[in-house]
Amino acid sequence: MLQECFYHTSLNNWVYAYDKDTIHLRMRTKRNDVEEVVAVTGDKYDWDKTVAEYNMLRISSDSMFDYWEAHVKPKYKRVSYGFRLRSGNQYAWMTEMGVTPDQPAPTGGYYDFSYIHEVDMYAAPEWAKEAIFYQIIPERFANGDPSNDPEGTQPWGGKPTYENFFGGDLQGIIDHLDYLVDLGINAIYLTPVFEAPSNHKYDTVDYKKVDPHLGDNELLKKMVEQCHSKGIRVMLDAVFNHCSEQFPQFQDVMKNGENSKYAEWFHIREYPLEVKDGIPTYDTFGFFGNMPKFNTANPEVKQYLLDVAEYWIKEIKIDGWRLDVANEVDHAFWRDFRKTVKAANPEAYIVGEVWNDSLKWLMGDQFDSVMNYPFSNKVLQFFTDPGMDGSAFADNIGSLQVRYPQQTNEVIFNLLCSHDTPRVLTRVGEDRRKLKLCVVFLLTYLGTPCTFYGDEVGLSGGDDPDCRKCMEWDPKKQDRDLFDFYKMLIALRKNNQALRRGFFRFLKADPHDSRVIYERIDQDTHFTIWMNNTDQKTKISHAMDTNDWKDALTGEEVHTTEGTMNIELDVFGYRILYRNLH
Amino acid sequence: MLQECFYHTSLNNWVYAYDKDTIHLRMRTKRNDVEEVVAVTGDKYDWDKTVAEYNMLRISSDSMFDYWEAHVKPKYKRVSYGFRLRSGNQYAWMTEMGVTPDQPAPTGGYYDFSYIHEVDMYAAPEWAKEAIFYQIIPERFANGDPSNDPEGTQPWGGKPTYENFFGGDLQGIIDHLDYLVDLGINAIYLTPVFEAPSNHKYDTVDYKKVDPHLGDNELLKKMVEQCHSKGIRVMLDAVFNHCSEQFPQFQDVMKNGENSKYAEWFHIREYPLEVKDGIPTYDTFGFFGNMPKFNTANPEVKQYLLDVAEYWIKEIKIDGWRLDVANEVDHAFWRDFRKTVKAANPEAYIVGEVWNDSLKWLMGDQFDSVMNYPFSNKVLQFFTDPGMDGSAFADNIGSLQVRYPQQTNEVIFNLLCSHDTPRVLTRVGEDRRKLKLCVVFLLTYLGTPCTFYGDEVGLSGGDDPDCRKCMEWDPKKQDRDLFDFYKMLIALRKNNQALRRGFFRFLKADPHDSRVIYERIDQDTHFTIWMNNTDQKTKISHAMDTNDWKDALTGEEVHTTEGTMNIELDVFGYRILYRNLH
Repeated sequence: MLQECFYHTSLNNWVYAYDKDTIHLRMRTKRNDVEEVVAVTGDKYDWDKTVAEYNMLRISSDSMFDYWEAHVKPKYKRVSYGFRLRSGNQYAWMTEMGVTPDQPAPTGGYYDFSYIHEVDMYAAPEWAKEAIFYQIIPERFANGDPSNDPEGTQPWGGKPTYENFFGGDLQGIIDHLDYLVDLGINAIYLTPVFEAPSNHKYDTVDYKKVDPHLGDNELLKKMVEQCHSKGIRVMLDAVFNHCSEQFPQFQDVMKNGENSKYAEWFHIREYPLEVKDGIPTYDTFGFFGNMPKFNTANPEVKQYLLDVAEYWIKEIKIDGWRLDVANEVDHAFWRDFRKTVKAANPEAYIVGEVWNDSLKWLMGDQFDSVMNYPFSNKVLQFFTDPGMDGSAFADNIGSLQVRYPQQTNEVIFNLLCSHDTPRVLTRVGEDRRKLKLCVVFLLTYLGTPCTFYGDEVGLSGGDDPDCRKCMEWDPKKQDRDLFDFYKMLIALRKNNQALRRGFFRFLKADPHDSRVIYERIDQDTHFTIWMNNTDQKTKISHAMDTNDWKDALTGEEVHTTEGTMNIELDVFGYRILYRNLH
Repeated sequence: MLQECFYHTSLNNWVYAYDKDTIHLRMRTKRNDVEEVVAVTGDKYDWDKTVAEYNMLRISSDSMFDYWEAHVKPKYKRVSYGFRLRSGNQYAWMTEMGVTPDQPAPTGGYYDFSYIHEVDMYAAPEWAKEAIFYQIIPERFANGDPSNDPEGTQPWGGKPTYENFFGGDLQGIIDHLDYLVDLGINAIYLTPVFEAPSNHKYDTVDYKKVDPHLGDNELLKKMVEQCHSKGIRVMLDAVFNHCSEQFPQFQDVMKNGENSKYAEWFHIREYPLEVKDGIPTYDTFGFFGNMPKFNTANPEVKQYLLDVAEYWIKEIKIDGWRLDVANEVDHAFWRDFRKTVKAANPEAYIVGEVWNDSLKWLMGDQFDSVMNYPFSNKVLQFFTDPGMDGSAFADNIGSLQVRYPQQTNEVIFNLLCSHDTPRVLTRVGEDRRKLKLCVVFLLTYLGTPCTFYGDEVGLSGGDDPDCRKCMEWDPKKQDRDLFDFYKMLIALRKNNQALRRGFFRFLKADPHDSRVIYERIDQDTHFTIWMNNTDQKTKISHAMDTNDWKDALTGEEVHTTEGTMNIELDVFGYRILYRNLH
């Protein structure tokens, strides 16, 4: 066994309370190097009477490592533990003291999880585990009230630029709630709706006011009420890293310099405030002088923004916040943000925009979830890069699975594209078959899936601003086949807990072969998903223990032959089978 | 290069803000496997203009790995980065996407430290970096006021049991402050002083009242004032995990069961409160029925204990808190504790009692430090186990050094023994030469060193209660040679910043050889410490670039011969050399 590959540390995603009775332990070994890992556990104050061994399950692998997990249920909320590893007749022990050939005496030097405190436990709202999200740019979804259109509004469906407007608004969303219900959506995420000069509104001027071009606070409240009455949750976008240069407090600093009573609201490096050689003399989002960065460590700023966070939840009854550029705001701020938001609504869902590994925000004290761009990248890579085989795809997905605690995996905000990336249809070269494979994976995988408005009717587009086209409402121009496909897959996910919360595992993911099979399973249902990610028709054969499978979309029985399931698939085809477990 | 050994993760001790301008990056590789690691860094919003390479320094090693560190000073408070590793002509890159042979295009997929927020930065009080601590059990240090002795107090110097009392008190400490000043102490840590039935007082009955057998609040205030006037800081012991069963609120629950208004103050599993087969029906410290555990998630309890924390700082002016059984209290509590304590006194020093790896409390939001028992264990092991060579010792110390951020290393509470372990003199088999080697290491190493009362005059003792003997005040029974040694070493440390804050490195630490050399160096002074941890006289030879060394304790010049320093050492002997750098 290559001992240098053994890895565990007594924090983060390696040991954590999953619920008030259960502690998850994880351990890493070199891939295909260790046959068995046993967690030897007990209470350090009474080891002999409490000692218990747990065989760890190999939950995933990546290109270098296997990852093992055990679910420990200690009697007194605490556990001391070490790992016993075996390969053939070789044994090794790993504790906090390092790797030893024999068992060290318990429990000095063992790892320790001192006490399960519910208050420290990562706990996301249950509804997020059931949610099917739909992301909307209000300016581009539907124009329900031409009377509030900005000056110079262009005809619906025109070419989007960084500056132009098309008149979409909240009334437009209200008008199309039945469309979303028909599609199967039960949660929407709106990009910013507060008063802001730009079309994207990520440059807020008034945090307590809906932009007049979109409607007003009353209308938003009405929209939320109507959403709720139709079983749709509403998440808004909080841009707390920075504001617009037109934000009154910033204008005051522009005018009065260091004498402004708001001078400490921002990070000013040098007066006067100006942009020199492309670099503002104050901290900003990127180097954009029109988006000055807040000093969120200033208690006045913090209180101001926390009041905003609370207001929209308490008064307007929204169900969650997506946090823009969340990684550039301080952790202390987000901890208090979480307290404020969860006090206002314990069921609120908090999703950070963090493109990198986000573990430091996901330990229970800050966010519930993050926008899972690494997921999008891995999925899109597999279904667009013919050089990537099933084995590499499984490695990539496996690596994402162990990056976060299980609780995060259950509610991580999985998406294929957004207002900040090219459209998925464009990413797959407009090949609807590949698009469907991506969507099948999204909707049969762990996490909280989100569809970007219009993807379901064939909207395409490259990078911003091209990905922000107007929604297509003309049924003749909509891809209705695609819509029906989305609707069917969404319904399948909603009707089957196994697809939302079940255990996930690849059954086939081989080198030099882009065909994969994976399963989802819970106590009620067992799914196997078969994908032909190649440009050739194929037959995938795989041994199956039982012969009680049905096609999940047609209901027809699908039989094995002598214990082998043979599934014929079209070019870039897929098939979803299931069986009931009782 | 063994790529499976490459390790970095974008959090914890692997990347952190060291000060408002500096980010520390760390990287791990297999030991002696990689010749060069370069951190390639830049601002993700303007990579080309900001790209900078940092050669990483190999700061330490353990038995399996080398650890590399770079100190990055980004212009705009943020850095994206990847690592370029080289062995011979072989190159590899590591980013968040994994290991690749060539440089991935910046910066998608690079690691990211998004922004240096001072509010999130780990920052311990400066004085703790200068402190020489002395731990006192008030009941055992000196009896300054026999009028407050408990009934049945035994003659000073008797054999300690779990139950007996010897009459030590705060007046006794006040009476001996000049002794501490003479020794060179500038900070004391008192085990609990609040009203409690036991002699150790880890079972508090009244958190706002000094135990009458020790004195009263006014006397403690006077003691603190006198300490401050003599340049001595005072740290008290906060027992917030549990209280005494005589704590009034717990008594109320004993009496009224679930109807008690304090029922939610504790973790009750079952009524009535009792101990069944050795297991209390409520959570406790260990399984001790007389130490019921607080429900620190209950806002009432939290407020109660935070008021206590604030009271002693604001009213009595103490300088810090040592936190008993800190690992069993929730993180949310400690975060608010830190806020309360630092608001009352930004210079307060917070030291948790955590025996295991303590990283999850040491990221800036909870403690400044922990009691460093892993340090004690490694040091005592080396100087008592003849089978342990210099190489293994250096591996152990190296592994501790990278366990925490540099800020923690600078103020970690290093000790050789405490009220919870055998005395160091007993641990080294009463061999004063070995004891001195331990003390030399303690006082010439990083961190905040602490001496347990009486170690400096030769107090011995096994496990509790034997380690809690009365202080020896009879000069004829004190080991005055030992006292002078401690005094000399303490003075040396206090007079030389290099010994407190300088860079640490082993110069000699070989297999099958228990003789070691290590250095401490800052911009002013360069120390080399030579130790003969064997029972044979020896001469250690080591090449030295310069010939300007002096003995740090005698001042005599010590010359090299043809570029080699030859140091003759007695059995278990040591020598400390230094040179001025300008």
